[in-house]
Amino acid sequence: MAKVLTNREENYSQWYNDLVTKAELAENSEVRGCMVIKPYGYAIWEKMQSELDRMFKATGHVNAYFPLFIPKSFFSREAAHVEGFAKECAVVTHYRLKNDEEGRGIVVDPTAKLEEELIIRPTSETIIWNSYKNWIQSYRDLPILINQWANVVRWEMRTRLFLRTAEFLWQEGHTAHATKEEAIEETVRMINVYSDFAEDYMALPVIKGCKSENERFAGALDTYAIEALMQDGKALQAGTSHFLGQNFAKAFDVQFTDKNGKLDYVWATSWGVSTRMIGALIMAHSDNHGLVIPPKLAPLQVVIIPIFKNEEQLSAISARACLIKSELEKAGISVKYDDRDNNTPGWKFTDYELKGVPVRIALGPRDIQNNTIETARRDTLKKETISQDNVISHIQFLLEDIQKNIYNKALKFRTENTYYTDNWNEFVDILENRGGFIMAHWDGTTETEEKIKEETKATIRVIPFDSSEEKGSCIYSGKPSGRRVLFARSY
Amino acid sequence: MAKVLTNREENYSQWYNDLVTKAELAENSEVRGCMVIKPYGYAIWEKMQSELDRMFKATGHVNAYFPLFIPKSFFSREAAHVEGFAKECAVVTHYRLKNDEEGRGIVVDPTAKLEEELIIRPTSETIIWNSYKNWIQSYRDLPILINQWANVVRWEMRTRLFLRTAEFLWQEGHTAHATKEEAIEETVRMINVYSDFAEDYMALPVIKGCKSENERFAGALDTYAIEALMQDGKALQAGTSHFLGQNFAKAFDVQFTDKNGKLDYVWATSWGVSTRMIGALIMAHSDNHGLVIPPKLAPLQVVIIPIFKNEEQLSAISARACLIKSELEKAGISVKYDDRDNNTPGWKFTDYELKGVPVRIALGPRDIQNNTIETARRDTLKKETISQDNVISHIQFLLEDIQKNIYNKALKFRTENTYYTDNWNEFVDILENRGGFIMAHWDGTTETEEKIKEETKATIRVIPFDSSEEKGSCIYSGKPSGRRVLFARSY
Repeated sequence: MAKVLTNREENYSQWYNDLVTKAELAENSEVRGCMVIKPYGYAIWEKMQSELDRMFKATGHVNAYFPLFIPKSFFSREAAHVEGFAKECAVVTHYRLKNDEEGRGIVVDPTAKLEEELIIRPTSETIIWNSYKNWIQSYRDLPILINQWANVVRWEMRTRLFLRTAEFLWQEGHTAHATKEEAIEETVRMINVYSDFAEDYMALPVIKGCKSENERFAGALDTYAIEALMQDGKALQAGTSHFLGQNFAKAFDVQFTDKNGKLDYVWATSWGVSTRMIGALIMAHSDNHGLVIPPKLAPLQVVIIPIFKNEEQLSAISARACLIKSELEKAGISVKYDDRDNNTPGWKFTDYELKGVPVRIALGPRDIQNNTIETARRDTLKKETISQDNVISHIQFLLEDIQKNIYNKALKFRTENTYYTDNWNEFVDILENRGGFIMAHWDGTTETEEKIKEETKATIRVIPFDSSEEKGSCIYSGKPSGRRVLFARSY
Repeated sequence: MAKVLTNREENYSQWYNDLVTKAELAENSEVRGCMVIKPYGYAIWEKMQSELDRMFKATGHVNAYFPLFIPKSFFSREAAHVEGFAKECAVVTHYRLKNDEEGRGIVVDPTAKLEEELIIRPTSETIIWNSYKNWIQSYRDLPILINQWANVVRWEMRTRLFLRTAEFLWQEGHTAHATKEEAIEETVRMINVYSDFAEDYMALPVIKGCKSENERFAGALDTYAIEALMQDGKALQAGTSHFLGQNFAKAFDVQFTDKNGKLDYVWATSWGVSTRMIGALIMAHSDNHGLVIPPKLAPLQVVIIPIFKNEEQLSAISARACLIKSELEKAGISVKYDDRDNNTPGWKFTDYELKGVPVRIALGPRDIQNNTIETARRDTLKKETISQDNVISHIQFLLEDIQKNIYNKALKFRTENTYYTDNWNEFVDILENRGGFIMAHWDGTTETEEKIKEETKATIRVIPFDSSEEKGSCIYSGKPSGRRVLFARSY
């Protein structure tokens, strides 16, 4: 197999596109901005879904499903919300096609025009709060802790496989609470679920914090986010959790009677992660050989490849390989034995490196004689020959070690590429020539934030939760600042 | 809790609607024809999904995801297909909203009109085969065995919760094969998966067979279906599997080189089941007390209700209940201990009957003294007092027995309501006055089929696979017929 990827160092963007398509994760469809998620990419999404769904349920949430369509009038009720999404809405106006009478083929039937246009959901706050109105009368009906797995559409002008597509898959939690405190607690709980998932499963160190007012979700009082650093020095927002206050309750008139018999508006949160996380996973760990997938999310954790010259050798190897496979599977490890004879072992090695399978086992005639196997770990590409007697415990160790190592490598990269500066020229220089996270002082105004963005393309990613108080002067305006915030260019 | 359901015998249709809404499975949204699937209804769907997904994977399939939008031109390529779906298509024509300059609020931006309209997928053959074109060159690329879990939209004029909604959730398998034989084998394999699922999990006896030409999927050469009998004597189609021949391969020019180097069009199948199955589940088993859910698909299998007069009693009962709960959970059984104090035990009994929880355990002070529990099974409402020492094995037995009993009851109902007749007056009388399945002779023409439908509203549900050859005369035309086919009125 010839070299298939553009070098990451030469052209990061092309390297990413090559990787996504050549590893068969996804491809662009002929529908503008919409991707096809291919089986291997979808298998990663299924792994992510399954862990997240378990975490949501463990924190008391249940799943439900709300309509794809949102009447334009619902959508318009919360002013900031519609303002934020109006420019990227796919709109359904008709409900029938017909054969053109003048022979131009199939056309939209002009008599089947909807009285009110329907928006394809870009997010579901409005349609959901319109339902919650009928579900909530008393504090006894609260909290409502619902999550939805769904597709959403945002008509983005510039799209990128997984990172920014017109249609994407996600989950959106929408909760309703009797008190402000409880809603804020939920908002925090869910950003913590996301950061635990990112760190423990995606092996992706993230920084948790608040968004600045300017970067908040349209309709939220506060947005918390997790931000990760990609290998090209750009930030990627991997998940958000919003404290919506009483905005949607007011827009949809959702009031409840509290324990004292007093009427009040309900408090809300919403939170979501999407197939974008697959883009983050790829960008954070992969190399010039291909994908590097953390074992906990790898659709296939181990591949066994036979090395043989004739049928007799293959038959002895296969017997042993199947035994090893079945023992590994008993230990809960996913394994494929690839005995296809139309490709060489070398071709297969390269292909499974491209696909990011964490551990490769090679088994040849000499291994059968010596009771050994050769293992190769995808993260370091290091090979070892070990006794077949230790295969299960060694593979278990490798999978755990690879998971840790990938995380530590990403953490080291982030630490090495996080800068603290109080100097504007250095700030600009870092962004232009090095990339990375910058912790700098900011005067707290949207005006300054926008000027910095204009001049450097950097935005405030978050005001980190763990950013301690520290007196300083804004990197741009020189005005007083109470703490550093996280700047970066971003996806 | 007062009686909440309309009597099934008085008004079947109202009974069904009451049941769906009162048991909190789903409700109509304010978007015409679109439902909200509430958490309890969605939990049944999740159970169904999880078993079906396992069965699809066990038969070699993988999941993927294709775009929601289908360009109108793709959609029009297969003539019979577009003919079948054109009248119920939701069409996206614009991609932006804006603030109206004349102050009429948010309006569709007329300058953001799509060059080509996009259809919301009513089914995905066209967009998928347009992708397969790029994936298939040689016989080595075949078969492709892909399934997709997705939402689809068909603009139905008369809608009914679960049974017929404008948007619904489903899975659609789309496979590509090198030979006709292999594609037909796949079509059969998948209708068998569906019938196994219906019988083993939904406890729903089904009749497998071919659809008549008239009732085939738009674009298929052959459609296999499973048909079930509902308690009002109407048939419900619960799943279909289509042999598509080379129709879509030809429409999208998908050719491959076979083993002999010869070019040929690829053979296709597609198959799907939807949230409609939840409707079938409800209609087949439930009664005037509420839902009856087969234990294998019940989100909650056992509920434990304490009977107490004071805190001291509750505390002794709770200790024992939690022990029983945890032992049942260890045995893989889902259990809820409902110790809420704002409702009486009687209210709870009625509520869990409405929700169809298969087994209810009541635990009172006397049970604590006597080391007993009281069980009540939902299917027969029969109560028993048993020793706490046997609780796990007894509950396991009950769950298995309920599953079997529900199936047998539905099978008995079907057997008693399946008629063999050669007399037209009796045929009409059965449909008018009794309902049920009718096995009758048919001359094989669409003309006769349509006349029978006109006069009786009955259609040919399937030509059953196991319908043996038998010479006879068509029930309507008197012309010769080689076998009986299944007639019924249907949902």
